[in-house]
Amino acid sequence: MIIVMQPDATDVEVAGVVQRLRSLGAEVSVSRDQGRTMVEGSVESLLQAESPWDSFPGVDHVVPQVRGGRRVGREFKSVDTVVTVGSVAIGAGPLVVIAGPCAVESLDQLLAAARAVKEGGAGILRGDAFKPRTSPYTFQGLGKAGLEMLAEARRLTGLPFVAEVLDPREVDLVSSYADMVRIGTRNMSNYPLLREVGRQDKPVLLKRGRGSTVAEWVDAAEYVHNEGNSDIVLVERGIRGFDSSARNTLDITAVPVAKALTHLPVMVDPSHAAGRKDLVAPLARAAVAVGADGVMVDVHPSPETALVDGAQALVPEEFRALMAELQAVARAVGRV
Amino acid sequence: MIIVMQPDATDVEVAGVVQRLRSLGAEVSVSRDQGRTMVEGSVESLLQAESPWDSFPGVDHVVPQVRGGRRVGREFKSVDTVVTVGSVAIGAGPLVVIAGPCAVESLDQLLAAARAVKEGGAGILRGDAFKPRTSPYTFQGLGKAGLEMLAEARRLTGLPFVAEVLDPREVDLVSSYADMVRIGTRNMSNYPLLREVGRQDKPVLLKRGRGSTVAEWVDAAEYVHNEGNSDIVLVERGIRGFDSSARNTLDITAVPVAKALTHLPVMVDPSHAAGRKDLVAPLARAAVAVGADGVMVDVHPSPETALVDGAQALVPEEFRALMAELQAVARAVGRV
Amino acid sequence: MIIVMQPDATDVEVAGVVQRLRSLGAEVSVSRDQGRTMVEGSVESLLQAESPWDSFPGVDHVVPQVRGGRRVGREFKSVDTVVTVGSVAIGAGPLVVIAGPCAVESLDQLLAAARAVKEGGAGILRGDAFKPRTSPYTFQGLGKAGLEMLAEARRLTGLPFVAEVLDPREVDLVSSYADMVRIGTRNMSNYPLLREVGRQDKPVLLKRGRGSTVAEWVDAAEYVHNEGNSDIVLVERGIRGFDSSARNTLDITAVPVAKALTHLPVMVDPSHAAGRKDLVAPLARAAVAVGADGVMVDVHPSPETALVDGAQALVPEEFRALMAELQAVARAVGRV
Amino acid sequence: MIIVMQPDATDVEVAGVVQRLRSLGAEVSVSRDQGRTMVEGSVESLLQAESPWDSFPGVDHVVPQVRGGRRVGREFKSVDTVVTVGSVAIGAGPLVVIAGPCAVESLDQLLAAARAVKEGGAGILRGDAFKPRTSPYTFQGLGKAGLEMLAEARRLTGLPFVAEVLDPREVDLVSSYADMVRIGTRNMSNYPLLREVGRQDKPVLLKRGRGSTVAEWVDAAEYVHNEGNSDIVLVERGIRGFDSSARNTLDITAVPVAKALTHLPVMVDPSHAAGRKDLVAPLARAAVAVGADGVMVDVHPSPETALVDGAQALVPEEFRALMAELQAVARAVGRV
Repeated sequence: MIIVMQPDATDVEVAGVVQRLRSLGAEVSVSRDQGRTMVEGSVESLLQAESPWDSFPGVDHVVPQVRGGRRVGREFKSVDTVVTVGSVAIGAGPLVVIAGPCAVESLDQLLAAARAVKEGGAGILRGDAFKPRTSPYTFQGLGKAGLEMLAEARRLTGLPFVAEVLDPREVDLVSSYADMVRIGTRNMSNYPLLREVGRQDKPVLLKRGRGSTVAEWVDAAEYVHNEGNSDIVLVERGIRGFDSSARNTLDITAVPVAKALTHLPVMVDPSHAAGRKDLVAPLARAAVAVGADGVMVDVHPSPETALVDGAQALVPEEFRALMAELQAVARAVGRV
Repeated sequence: MIIVMQPDATDVEVAGVVQRLRSLGAEVSVSRDQGRTMVEGSVESLLQAESPWDSFPGVDHVVPQVRGGRRVGREFKSVDTVVTVGSVAIGAGPLVVIAGPCAVESLDQLLAAARAVKEGGAGILRGDAFKPRTSPYTFQGLGKAGLEMLAEARRLTGLPFVAEVLDPREVDLVSSYADMVRIGTRNMSNYPLLREVGRQDKPVLLKRGRGSTVAEWVDAAEYVHNEGNSDIVLVERGIRGFDSSARNTLDITAVPVAKALTHLPVMVDPSHAAGRKDLVAPLARAAVAVGADGVMVDVHPSPETALVDGAQALVPEEFRALMAELQAVARAVGRV
Repeated sequence: MIIVMQPDATDVEVAGVVQRLRSLGAEVSVSRDQGRTMVEGSVESLLQAESPWDSFPGVDHVVPQVRGGRRVGREFKSVDTVVTVGSVAIGAGPLVVIAGPCAVESLDQLLAAARAVKEGGAGILRGDAFKPRTSPYTFQGLGKAGLEMLAEARRLTGLPFVAEVLDPREVDLVSSYADMVRIGTRNMSNYPLLREVGRQDKPVLLKRGRGSTVAEWVDAAEYVHNEGNSDIVLVERGIRGFDSSARNTLDITAVPVAKALTHLPVMVDPSHAAGRKDLVAPLARAAVAVGADGVMVDVHPSPETALVDGAQALVPEEFRALMAELQAVARAVGRV
Repeated sequence: MIIVMQPDATDVEVAGVVQRLRSLGAEVSVSRDQGRTMVEGSVESLLQAESPWDSFPGVDHVVPQVRGGRRVGREFKSVDTVVTVGSVAIGAGPLVVIAGPCAVESLDQLLAAARAVKEGGAGILRGDAFKPRTSPYTFQGLGKAGLEMLAEARRLTGLPFVAEVLDPREVDLVSSYADMVRIGTRNMSNYPLLREVGRQDKPVLLKRGRGSTVAEWVDAAEYVHNEGNSDIVLVERGIRGFDSSARNTLDITAVPVAKALTHLPVMVDPSHAAGRKDLVAPLARAAVAVGADGVMVDVHPSPETALVDGAQALVPEEFRALMAELQAVARAVGRV
């Protein structure tokens, strides 16, 4: 944290700031630049960054970030991060497609979906064993049995898989099976969970909270990175808005904004954004065109019997048609 | 309007509804379908459609639309409407690009912009002579002199132009110069203005209100169509949202939703959505990929001196680069 | 407009800014304050306030307001404005209640409502002769005949009335009958209409746009004031939000925010905010408690036959009960 | 779950629904009511409630709730729930005020705040030992040491206290010290955490998610109740909106809506809604007037040194003044 004093700040005012920082245990250095005094506190004093420094006499403004900014930020690392899941590289250029059922319901259902998405050209399988549901009376997932089915699907198809984790106590379990762990939209600000996935070594797919700003999403990624895990992929999946045509308002602008702010790969989930199957293909095309590194799509062999989100799932032939469309757009924007 | 009675509605309940409709001057017909009674009122009774019919004894629900639905709706006409501006056809397949300065500031500025966008491949020139500004103390446009400059730019470049109209008393003036009149986001629900542009014969570009749902936007188009003018192009330009990364939240989903609901062409204005130049190209690509019939882009020969919205305007070389990107995406989605 | 240069701005940089301002026709003065150079342009140069001064070399930031701020602003006039309608003073302390039917439907309906609200203690009658409706196929108001009914209701009850105006060409007509003219939520950014009501001498009730910020609402009031009419009352009536429990999201916070920013009276319309009758009383109480100068409530003698917004209208006995509740809260917050 | 068939559904269609429900393990009963067939599945089949029943042939619509509705719903229990914390009853009529510092920073700070709020008339002390912070580099709370300070403050003042819990693994710890545990806005949809607080026996204060609907908030309460803990108090604290005048948009309407939907007490946190000290008093008054059972206010002995949210904290004398205002409004609405 750097506290920039006003051009006419007095020595007494500078000393007041220094003293307060020291009282918080910070090491302090003072410098002058272009006619202004700068007071910089050590990393530990960052914990105090929300003290209302702006109201201290003589203070002009505060640069609150860690020196060099957030670890996930472009100012920390300008080169794009590439996240590898199995043998699939996300952020390396070519479009990556994650596909599969929203929830694992049975081995048959999962294998049918996995084979279909493999054949269609997906690189990573999705399928959840633990589901966060708005109501406690809806299907909550198969748990460990679901993870075992996912591992079996991987064995049979060769596709690595990503699965959601909901509980810090289950991170080890999910992480021991999955190739990538996912933080869902409801848990974007669940900091104990973010810390736990930051401490294990599988890549992390971090969905944006439906009521969260891009800046808060980036801060959530920082929680993960700060624990040592830098393999993070951001996923925009729609935010709250006032129009009820679709389930959520896909914030397509968030993709270039997040890519400008961070060095992380950014993907889009058009299925959960739309909640309606007929919108999945146009939104997926838009995602590729806007610059996303990949898309994540719900595919189900028989959506009319799906236990979760059947209305938004593509059937295998629709998925194959979508893949052809996405490949064309990907070529047009130089993702090959 | 059709009032569907409950399966067990009594004759007295049906009679109550019929009587109320007749008291409003409607011609009424009663029919039975699949065990239910349906009471239908004549077109005039539609004016009463918001009477709380749902609370009448025995009423199940109301189908409020005009027989055959809205005139701008797919149920009224399933074939896509093509709107012709000068020699440019919007909605016929090939991507249409409207470009130019946000506001006409001087003949020099306008001609420089017009030549640049013509050279870059735009089909229609934009430039406003009347500007709706949030504050009364900012530049409000050159008025009639601005329209004359636009006509001169058309003469010199061959580009037809679109200009905003703000006041029902100025519709004839703007319409006498422009090839297409525009209703801005602040006036989407200005019904006297919508009616006036519905009564003149130039095509109408109807921007979505920044706080309006897609359904309300479609109803606004219906106001225009209802007066006899069916040459309407819808433009999504960003809505209100809680994230301040960009000026507005571009609701890219609104494009396929509006195209599914109506037979009208739909375009996107990424410049006003973003308010930031660096986001214009990715959002424009997304618009083409999602299925928009065209995009509308701010171009200014020297944005640093622009009187309005300089931060979002592209310079001519940026516009040329954008056109190349858009052509590639347009080919990928079959718009050639 | 004052352009504040960076502490280390060079003379060449200062000269660049001065030159640009002069080229725009501004009179320019340069001063130094606390080690920084300030360049101030004359009022005329305000028209240029959106030129991207921030990107000029050496510029630190811009203070864009007119010297002394907006005319509706506290910095222009610190004392609260009192707006008088007939013999009723809005903003003088005591709570003012405006009540009546959303739309004038017939003389009988209007008189029944007017007598009920008079008896209940309302000070001003509401009732519209021109209605802005989302669909062109719903009831649009009785027009001039409705205004004559309102005048008759005034004659019989002694209540002054407020009526909406939609079209700049109808301002004189509405103003010749009504004691106060209203700008509805759809027209908050209809600047030609704002200017027209600013040029006539009846007080103006200015509703907040459902997709507009408080700052934009205050700027809309400035349009009216700038034409010479300072008798403006602001009305919060709910904004767009993502929760569909009520028709709109009542932004109760906007009341103290608007009262802090401006010297104008601020009222609340709980009926249009809620769209549901059962929420009108609690929201009206909240409005009084938060500091509103008055409330505006829909009352209808027989809501089940109302042509507009029947679901939110109170019947006379509910209105009387509400008035008793509001008087108690008004006393608690010192409005007597 | 009750599946209502269309009036003309065939026997084969009814049988199809029955068969599918049975294949999911449900016990099924079929009945006829008013000319329609109703198929009802046993409680277990609720887990399947999101299967797209609407698309089954012959199905008209689905009534998805458990028979009798949600346990927190009015249809389950019509009498208001009263939640007792120490000797304070929330929901019994009299207004309850929870007050104290946002975060526990030191014993001195906490005791100064606790004594001030006790003296001012607060019934419950707030103060957090675990803080969920948007950035990992800001103060995260004192942890167990903070809880011990809170227990000491309780011993010295007699005030019971409420403290936030963030991690399912820390529920026992927090619950062993606190008189009431709080779920913060970021964790409203953290279902493992909701389940854990549902399994311990201290009352639960459940804040609304800033991006969550009222219906989702009520479902979150259902998660707690479903585990056996019915002592739940809902707290509205502002939601995401497009106006940046205040930190959040206080959804005052949510109070009567939540009270109509559930039998739980509902409170308001004006401090976190506003983020600005000058708005706390008007919003708190509005909360009492709208019908909230209590308010929750940040009080800090020296906000200018606060580590968290200093800008919104009242100093002790401001809190005393607020309490006098709130008592007056409480009397006006019959809360004494």
